[in-house]
Amino acid sequence: MSDAPAGSPARQRREGHRAPRARVQAIAERQMPWRQVRNPYPPVEIISRDAVEAIHLASLTILETTGIAIQSERVRALCVEKGAEPMGGARLRFDRALVEAAIATAPSSFAMHTRNPARSVAVGDGNVVFATVSGPPNCSDLERGRRPGTMADYEDFLRLGQVFNTVHVIGGYPVEPLDIPVPVRHLHGLRAMVTMTDKVPRIYCHSLERTRDALEIIRIANGLSEEELTRRPVSFAIINTNSPLQLDAAMVEGIAEMARMNQPTVITPFTLSGAMAPVTLIGALAQQNAEALAGLAVSQFVRPGAPVVYGAFTTNVNMKSGAPAFGTPEYAKAAIISGQLARRYRLPFRSSNINTSNAPDAQAAYESMMATWSAVMGGVNFLHQSMGWLEGGLTASVEKFVLDVEMLQLFVSFLQPEVVDADTLALAAIEDVGPGGHFFATPHTLARYETAFYSPLVSDWRNFESWKQDGAVDATRRAGAIARQAIAEYEPPTLDPAAAEEIAAFVARRTQEGGAPVN
Amino acid sequence: MSDAPAGSPARQRREGHRAPRARVQAIAERQMPWRQVRNPYPPVEIISRDAVEAIHLASLTILETTGIAIQSERVRALCVEKGAEPMGGARLRFDRALVEAAIATAPSSFAMHTRNPARSVAVGDGNVVFATVSGPPNCSDLERGRRPGTMADYEDFLRLGQVFNTVHVIGGYPVEPLDIPVPVRHLHGLRAMVTMTDKVPRIYCHSLERTRDALEIIRIANGLSEEELTRRPVSFAIINTNSPLQLDAAMVEGIAEMARMNQPTVITPFTLSGAMAPVTLIGALAQQNAEALAGLAVSQFVRPGAPVVYGAFTTNVNMKSGAPAFGTPEYAKAAIISGQLARRYRLPFRSSNINTSNAPDAQAAYESMMATWSAVMGGVNFLHQSMGWLEGGLTASVEKFVLDVEMLQLFVSFLQPEVVDADTLALAAIEDVGPGGHFFATPHTLARYETAFYSPLVSDWRNFESWKQDGAVDATRRAGAIARQAIAEYEPPTLDPAAAEEIAAFVARRTQEGGAPVN
Repeated sequence: MSDAPAGSPARQRREGHRAPRARVQAIAERQMPWRQVRNPYPPVEIISRDAVEAIHLASLTILETTGIAIQSERVRALCVEKGAEPMGGARLRFDRALVEAAIATAPSSFAMHTRNPARSVAVGDGNVVFATVSGPPNCSDLERGRRPGTMADYEDFLRLGQVFNTVHVIGGYPVEPLDIPVPVRHLHGLRAMVTMTDKVPRIYCHSLERTRDALEIIRIANGLSEEELTRRPVSFAIINTNSPLQLDAAMVEGIAEMARMNQPTVITPFTLSGAMAPVTLIGALAQQNAEALAGLAVSQFVRPGAPVVYGAFTTNVNMKSGAPAFGTPEYAKAAIISGQLARRYRLPFRSSNINTSNAPDAQAAYESMMATWSAVMGGVNFLHQSMGWLEGGLTASVEKFVLDVEMLQLFVSFLQPEVVDADTLALAAIEDVGPGGHFFATPHTLARYETAFYSPLVSDWRNFESWKQDGAVDATRRAGAIARQAIAEYEPPTLDPAAAEEIAAFVARRTQEGGAPVN
Repeated sequence: MSDAPAGSPARQRREGHRAPRARVQAIAERQMPWRQVRNPYPPVEIISRDAVEAIHLASLTILETTGIAIQSERVRALCVEKGAEPMGGARLRFDRALVEAAIATAPSSFAMHTRNPARSVAVGDGNVVFATVSGPPNCSDLERGRRPGTMADYEDFLRLGQVFNTVHVIGGYPVEPLDIPVPVRHLHGLRAMVTMTDKVPRIYCHSLERTRDALEIIRIANGLSEEELTRRPVSFAIINTNSPLQLDAAMVEGIAEMARMNQPTVITPFTLSGAMAPVTLIGALAQQNAEALAGLAVSQFVRPGAPVVYGAFTTNVNMKSGAPAFGTPEYAKAAIISGQLARRYRLPFRSSNINTSNAPDAQAAYESMMATWSAVMGGVNFLHQSMGWLEGGLTASVEKFVLDVEMLQLFVSFLQPEVVDADTLALAAIEDVGPGGHFFATPHTLARYETAFYSPLVSDWRNFESWKQDGAVDATRRAGAIARQAIAEYEPPTLDPAAAEEIAAFVARRTQEGGAPVN
């Protein structure tokens, strides 16, 4: 599924793109090199430490008083064994000492590995990881418009994810391959993910059976034994709560299984202020914190020290429709405060690059910037939905993917700290040039100019006349052309043929078994 | 010039817009109310205090060693009288003690007034003022494309400036009215500015004669005597240095004249890293600081306590063309460090909302966001070029103006601090709703939902289907429609008819005298 047969229309289309006009530089040369991104700046704080503490204490009160519903009998039993008190039904009460003791065992940072050592990344402690869009049922590009996702679309997005160096990890299915039946979708989805990219893959914990299938495929791709797997994070899962105050069975069993295998979970309540959480942002954050702490505690109950990320996704509804709005001012504030909370627990912090726009236009860009500036200045360690998210997450956009790559490159450059020393202060150059001169040809300039400044991928900095003469192509259409070029230039990563064969056999066997039937 | 005659095509066009379809809400109801914006958050710092001090000391060394050229004999004589030492030609050396003593008399904040007390604004001390685009020779809109500015275009931008509440002050000529001869352009330009808007106007210090003409028109509009004017800032000027290390005659005489009249100046070196300033950003900032300190000192030599703003405009060149690039990562870092320097001197800080894009597209939006986030998080007090700047400042865009209004509204909302208390923590509501419920109809929600969240002006938050059915109009085209509506709904502000007559007579007399001839 991962490679169109030679001579097929898909292959011809791509090979057509592979014959670029001489003046088009390869994406590999135009983009930034792969690098682990570090944020050297102190995180922004917009509420006081006392206020952070008040939210923390409120969330402990929620877990003690209102409790939380854990919809898995098995995990509920584990929680009770560790000290939680049944409240009737699925509801459990968590004592504050129990929660605080559990959270204390979670690590402040961890590494995620992949079979290509150059693609391993660190999460937490000032490191920043960018993950692709995940989950939209639709995809879109300017040529073909918006349409339900297929495996072919899915694979094109994986190609984009592999080519662009700002993509650190694959955030999930960049678009749902709706043409693959649900019982086997995770098998074919994971197989494509680990064969077409060598970046850390994401697991969907939609059922215990699926989680185990996914872990098996990833284990084989990494050439690890089961025992080795438990000593080496090579995947991650995003766990959403079912707000308010519910952890669904599949999700909480996912937390437990991932912790059992020592694989990271990103515990992310979707606390929608005004709908599934209080209309006051601070109330929504107190609820977010309670839900996150409960999920984090479960992971630590299973394996103290299991890698976890404090996830935040609090935003507000559009009060005219009740639908969520993303990239709003409220979202930006919630993200920054969430970072403050995550650091209260010394945990890695996850936020997202999200927007509400229906098109990859100026709205998509400024909403994304609201989300990403607040995340980065708020000390984000794991930026989910980093590239390609559109329309409140209902569509993965090819053009938006590349616009996001450019925006994230801007941040990577912004996060290079400025050194202040005699060399950079340049007093001798200033004295040499003197009033009324210029610095173009000074030795100080000539020694540095080639690498002095950020060089854009999508942005067009030519003058108006040159730009107009060249067709007056706007940023979105330029991004589309870059995406097509990237897909054409994509090269599959190396994978041990024996591993590839083993994965194929596993997928074939599990497919024949009917995959993981829907309950 | 400010009002098209009844029955004229321009008036008909506007009145045509004045009969909106029933469902189009007036801009006045859709936008945020006018307000003085305050930034409650601690400013971001990306270099250490020692590093700030090193830049400060380097700039004092520049003024002591390399010196600066002051191209006005009169102002040079004043500087020498105050203690500067001639170095030959126009060059003067400023002792560090002299500079530091001068800067110490500058106020940390001041008010700018206008004849409408509701439109007065505070600059400095955590207050944020947004000023419109100023200076482009061209303007553009989607219908008519890019073209040289005329008085009719100029007036349309003034209408936008008056209608939108995020516009605090008129940053200057939003587009140059190139159809008005230069000797009288300042007369007709200022007359339109003070009659068509009641917001604080900006003066161009292109010559002493022009500065005085402009001040006279503004004095009359405010109903002040000359003596009263010197006690009441009712205008401001932007002063650019001629980098490296030159203050041109008109600019430095403008500083002196504005200080003499106790009117604010925003001293803004245009230190273009890699061209007119060192290729290292820190060197460019040391030079910026030296140039700014020299200009600030001149103002304080003339009138200790004269209102001034520390202006920053350091950015980098596009190394492929040598042309400036705006909204870059380097620009964002320079803006934040400039804020740190301004606070070192306890001075209000000016930055800008600028971009390099040739179109009001996604690039324009993300470049603007790079500039504006860094300004706002860096503690900006005066955001120049806030609405409408495009194409490196060569074009004022109608659509960009409205996109910027939306972006600035997002910031105004973001800058409303979150209160953490029992009411906002909402524990009772969370307990009432419990696991699995929802907050839509709770008393806590119903009491707050109407004003709980930001309501957008340009952003379309409807679902894809509704948006598509309505023509799939992108953000830029929606912004254009809002601009046309705003121009149609514009109402001139009140102005004492006697003042209007006196201004008309002054402009007529000065026009007959030939205005201010070009040297």
